[in-house]
Amino acid sequence: MMTAEQRFAVYDLYAHYASTADACRFDDWLNLFAPICSYRIISLENYAAGMPLCLMLCESRDMLIDRIVSLQRANEYAIHVDRHMISGIRVTQVQGDLLSVEANFLVGQTNSEGELSMYVMGSYHDTVQISDGQAFFVDKKVIVDNGCIPHAISTPI
Amino acid sequence: MMTAEQRFAVYDLYAHYASTADACRFDDWLNLFAPICSYRIISLENYAAGMPLCLMLCESRDMLIDRIVSLQRANEYAIHVDRHMISGIRVTQVQGDLLSVEANFLVGQTNSEGELSMYVMGSYHDTVQISDGQAFFVDKKVIVDNGCIPHAISTPI
Amino acid sequence: MMTAEQRFAVYDLYAHYASTADACRFDDWLNLFAPICSYRIISLENYAAGMPLCLMLCESRDMLIDRIVSLQRANEYAIHVDRHMISGIRVTQVQGDLLSVEANFLVGQTNSEGELSMYVMGSYHDTVQISDGQAFFVDKKVIVDNGCIPHAISTPI
Repeated sequence: MMTAEQRFAVYDLYAHYASTADACRFDDWLNLFAPICSYRIISLENYAAGMPLCLMLCESRDMLIDRIVSLQRANEYAIHVDRHMISGIRVTQVQGDLLSVEANFLVGQTNSEGELSMYVMGSYHDTVQISDGQAFFVDKKVIVDNGCIPHAISTPI
Repeated sequence: MMTAEQRFAVYDLYAHYASTADACRFDDWLNLFAPICSYRIISLENYAAGMPLCLMLCESRDMLIDRIVSLQRANEYAIHVDRHMISGIRVTQVQGDLLSVEANFLVGQTNSEGELSMYVMGSYHDTVQISDGQAFFVDKKVIVDNGCIPHAISTPI
Repeated sequence: MMTAEQRFAVYDLYAHYASTADACRFDDWLNLFAPICSYRIISLENYAAGMPLCLMLCESRDMLIDRIVSLQRANEYAIHVDRHMISGIRVTQVQGDLLSVEANFLVGQTNSEGELSMYVMGSYHDTVQISDGQAFFVDKKVIVDNGCIPHAISTPI
């Protein structure tokens, strides 16, 4: 159903997603998305109930770029370090070069005092495209278990 | 020693174990176990000391089914969302189609107020059978580091 | 760029790193390092600023052995269980048989009362050598996000 190369491309995509986000390499993070893409953060409660309200919704790459530019130049938020743990990466469907991929995540945050805490846990429900051996996000749904997120969302989950 | 296909079958087994448990798809979760199987949850303290007392023991598939039916129809417990992180999957022995597999786990829980906390951490010491390219649990030992689990065990670890 | 065998050797190295450390099999843990090796634990704050001060620095295998002997025979510290979660393993460079490898980690700790807490999160920035199909650490940098570690460092991170 999948070649080893496709699997490794998917595994690498999630590893780079985590490492670019955590290192605030947001331009590299953006480049993990396909030219036509969407990204949303939604609570599991709303997702499971089929309710469309998101915590964040970017319906195009331009909206995603806008969010990053805003993060880099305009937003004010408590400086912190994110650390993404992503596990259980599983391909649930293959249609041509489009894969449905799910994974679990935990994001920990360290604040400016050096104190660590759990921030969010949840699952990704994504559509991934493999082109020329490299994988990109076409659609990314960040489904957060703890919809009552401890504080404002600033950096990407 | 192992083919790439066997490895991927093992990786997928753990990914599906996590995703089916977390989504409360317990019938799919059951189907990850072989017809003749056992499942136990034991504290690391007892396991390391060679003491047999478990927190939960299912010595047959029927006992495992019974537990799931009870969970779905009879048990009362605080509704919550589990999220399994499983990493460090390692095959320690191969004997024919039976593999000894170990992995580390962390389960986070989100309560009905949307609050997230760590629930348990520990390791799996499992026997996995690969048949027709698919992997199944023949024996699963859930060894919990924090034997003093915060509250009653309801959903699978 | 990399063969499947190389990837699996790297994945296995990190799985064994976690399992040997968590099981206090420190001699096996030492054997994951190459004869000429270095190991350091450094805060992300210092690492990002290019400041050399480490929380721990072993510039040779003998220093690493010394640390383990001290841990096994001399040190006094609160007995606990470590549990390493390692994810997002990514090879960023290949030069002959030397690989630059990064990964994210979370270490949870269970104290002697059976209580679980997060201990540290961060990333590994390592140089790994593959020889005869097996991978070893030549240089390991443990970069800790929460430089303000909750208590003394005893067992390896």
